[in-house]
Amino acid sequence: MDKPQIGVIGMAVMGKNLALNIESRGYTVAIFNRTAAKTEAVMKEHSEKKLVPSYTIEDFVKSLEKPRRILMMVKAGAGTDAVIDELLPLLDKGDVLIDGGNTFFEDTMRRNAKLDKSGINFIGMGVSGGELGALEGPSMMPGGQKEAYDLVAPILEQISAKAKDGAPCVTYIGTNGAGHYVKMVHNGIEYGDMELIAESYNIMRNVLDYSVEDLADTFKDWNEGELESYLIEITAEILTRKDDLGTGKPVVDVILDAAGNKGTGKWSSQNALELGVPQSLITEAVYARYISALKEERVNASKVLPGPDHKPEIKDAKGTIEKVREALYFSKIMSYAQGFEQMRFASEKYQWDLQYGEIAKIWRAGCIIRAQFLQKITDAYNRTPNLQNLLLDQYFIDIAKKYQQSTRDVVALAAQAGIPAPGFSAAISYYDSYRSEVLPANLIQAQRDYFGAHTYNRVDRDGIFHYTWYKEQ
Amino acid sequence: MDKPQIGVIGMAVMGKNLALNIESRGYTVAIFNRTAAKTEAVMKEHSEKKLVPSYTIEDFVKSLEKPRRILMMVKAGAGTDAVIDELLPLLDKGDVLIDGGNTFFEDTMRRNAKLDKSGINFIGMGVSGGELGALEGPSMMPGGQKEAYDLVAPILEQISAKAKDGAPCVTYIGTNGAGHYVKMVHNGIEYGDMELIAESYNIMRNVLDYSVEDLADTFKDWNEGELESYLIEITAEILTRKDDLGTGKPVVDVILDAAGNKGTGKWSSQNALELGVPQSLITEAVYARYISALKEERVNASKVLPGPDHKPEIKDAKGTIEKVREALYFSKIMSYAQGFEQMRFASEKYQWDLQYGEIAKIWRAGCIIRAQFLQKITDAYNRTPNLQNLLLDQYFIDIAKKYQQSTRDVVALAAQAGIPAPGFSAAISYYDSYRSEVLPANLIQAQRDYFGAHTYNRVDRDGIFHYTWYKEQ
Repeated sequence: MDKPQIGVIGMAVMGKNLALNIESRGYTVAIFNRTAAKTEAVMKEHSEKKLVPSYTIEDFVKSLEKPRRILMMVKAGAGTDAVIDELLPLLDKGDVLIDGGNTFFEDTMRRNAKLDKSGINFIGMGVSGGELGALEGPSMMPGGQKEAYDLVAPILEQISAKAKDGAPCVTYIGTNGAGHYVKMVHNGIEYGDMELIAESYNIMRNVLDYSVEDLADTFKDWNEGELESYLIEITAEILTRKDDLGTGKPVVDVILDAAGNKGTGKWSSQNALELGVPQSLITEAVYARYISALKEERVNASKVLPGPDHKPEIKDAKGTIEKVREALYFSKIMSYAQGFEQMRFASEKYQWDLQYGEIAKIWRAGCIIRAQFLQKITDAYNRTPNLQNLLLDQYFIDIAKKYQQSTRDVVALAAQAGIPAPGFSAAISYYDSYRSEVLPANLIQAQRDYFGAHTYNRVDRDGIFHYTWYKEQ
Repeated sequence: MDKPQIGVIGMAVMGKNLALNIESRGYTVAIFNRTAAKTEAVMKEHSEKKLVPSYTIEDFVKSLEKPRRILMMVKAGAGTDAVIDELLPLLDKGDVLIDGGNTFFEDTMRRNAKLDKSGINFIGMGVSGGELGALEGPSMMPGGQKEAYDLVAPILEQISAKAKDGAPCVTYIGTNGAGHYVKMVHNGIEYGDMELIAESYNIMRNVLDYSVEDLADTFKDWNEGELESYLIEITAEILTRKDDLGTGKPVVDVILDAAGNKGTGKWSSQNALELGVPQSLITEAVYARYISALKEERVNASKVLPGPDHKPEIKDAKGTIEKVREALYFSKIMSYAQGFEQMRFASEKYQWDLQYGEIAKIWRAGCIIRAQFLQKITDAYNRTPNLQNLLLDQYFIDIAKKYQQSTRDVVALAAQAGIPAPGFSAAISYYDSYRSEVLPANLIQAQRDYFGAHTYNRVDRDGIFHYTWYKEQ
């Protein structure tokens, strides 16, 4: 066997599957895990593979070809720092350390700066695609030193998912925390997509009284058109499945309606708030998960808080379904417009020079939000590299024109039917705010100047103004 | 003159006005400012007052009665730490240092812990009411050592605003950062109130074609009823004012529609995201300010993004105005329900034992969100001290029953008219989510388990479950 060209630390499922993926492309891979038993189990299961196990971190580092390439797949947080501290004295200048965990980008920025002082390259890499993606081809978002990326690019390109046109779903994102940042926004967008699907399901099920079987067919149908995406596909699939504990019910009907989260959607919204960029749809998706978790309170509230005085009558169920489909595509576009505007603000603040079209391109396959639709975003940035917002590109303008009325109808229907639609509502509010030449923020500025002397700008001349609202000033 | 019973550091307008307020209650007040000129200006303007100026921080500290009471009114941030570092060697055990700035509560927690080691009491105190409130009576939210609060309580109670029943608008909030935390939530609620007023104004102006004069009358009228509050009052007042630069226009029509912010609303939303509590209305208010600031983009977008296919016809303008009023009150209640739930989550996390009824009580006068309505919140917590959410109290249930239909109608109207209503929409979405016994989060949990093996709970038995969605697992 060759001396391993790369090593993987952490033999939980993501690390194991990435190691196997790399090995399958012809590489010899060193593997290490804090608990020896996990490494032994991998070796036992895959004894025929070109895997080189080590049982101390020193042996692991010594086993690697130089410059060393090490991929850490450990639980994000303090554990990552602990591994780095152990590795640091064992590494040489020019070695490349990759953190493939779901790390907060500010931690990556800090670690990159710290290691850079010792001449060690540090790449923070977002990896999306779940367990299966790790094994068969994930979408990867690496950030760090460009010259370090070049040292691992051949491996990453080989193990990545490939889009339909054959392009690998990995590209250099930018310096220090850029990769983990873009992965964070990816996950925020994933929250938004899932929330919009859930709202569509809820409206069709509760306003139109569609059965779970009907809904499976509807999502399957939608997956044939412009909504085609992994999340729509698995939704259709999920809705066909029966409970595995024998109740005979659809599995969705035995799953508790209290959504969990791993924090990346939350980070994404907190960061949007920090940057001053409106990112309402993803944030509503995060809050929707939070409110779902208040199950006991909701059950109590459902007994005392009334719904609408009269339920809206649906005359044309098929027409309504089509409106929901159009609202879903329209709202998805609002969410991506917000997410890409967030990246634009971030790119400026953190000086990353993000390539938005390339980012959309590597999301076309491998990752959770994968969809042909992402090509439309790449096309838009190819047409206008310095595009301020997706909603100013002709393709998206045309979709907005076609589908804005259906979205209004669905938002109105949900409100009148008493079905929560925070994602759809955020979409139309954002759209109508964004296309408002004049918003009522003039009144807000007047109030702020009144009670806090915060001053204001004028519409007709430059400068900062303050009005004498009352004598005591 | 007596030895000063208290000293104020920072002679900008808030510090100066608080010093004058304290002096007016019979105290002698030491004053200090880093730049001597400001102190000299105050002394020149108020030579007859019992103010004792110092021009070094050493002299200022020496001038004070023991235990010393020092109120810092300096710009929040690094400046606060600098002043504390200068003061620390000059203070004695048992002295009380108060930070009355708009400080982030985590900074206050850190400073309280640091000073506590030296035996110095540190109170982080939120002060609301603007410049005039500082002079005539603010609402104050002090957090820190209880025994330190007792040493300053007589002064604070005297200088505070008084509610109609004579109760002072100050009370001990809790340990370390509790005071600044509650002030942060107050400010978040203030953002929500302002946004709802702005949306009401926008709908009436653009859907009903009301003039600014009509709107002034409408808000004046609303201020006579259950919406009575400082913000409604000043809105009516603002709408009567003409431009002070002679254009002859209403002043709101010359103020640029790009809202600023000082960050407290943002902190409040970021913290809600951190705690896992749904706080969508305030967050939409923060985002509404952000989107207003994208003026140039909006002007571009207004030229290419179309509005509704047809404008809704209004047959009953007066009836619609009443619906907007009801929607405003309903939505305000949703916002407060979220804000108080946020405090409940915070109280548990930070172990503050917040007294929600007392907090509502001290907001009845002096502060920006002051309103008689806050008495209803105090009443609710008096009825049920461990109330989970305001929406489970009978008064609020009754209001919800009466006004939920109008809110639905206004949200539908705004969506159909193309007028952004993110606050109203967040209110009805929250209401309908909160009263949903079943939300579509079961589908979200199924998706998460499908692509990430994140597991789920079941509706019919305890435990953690994972479904075999595909063979490769």
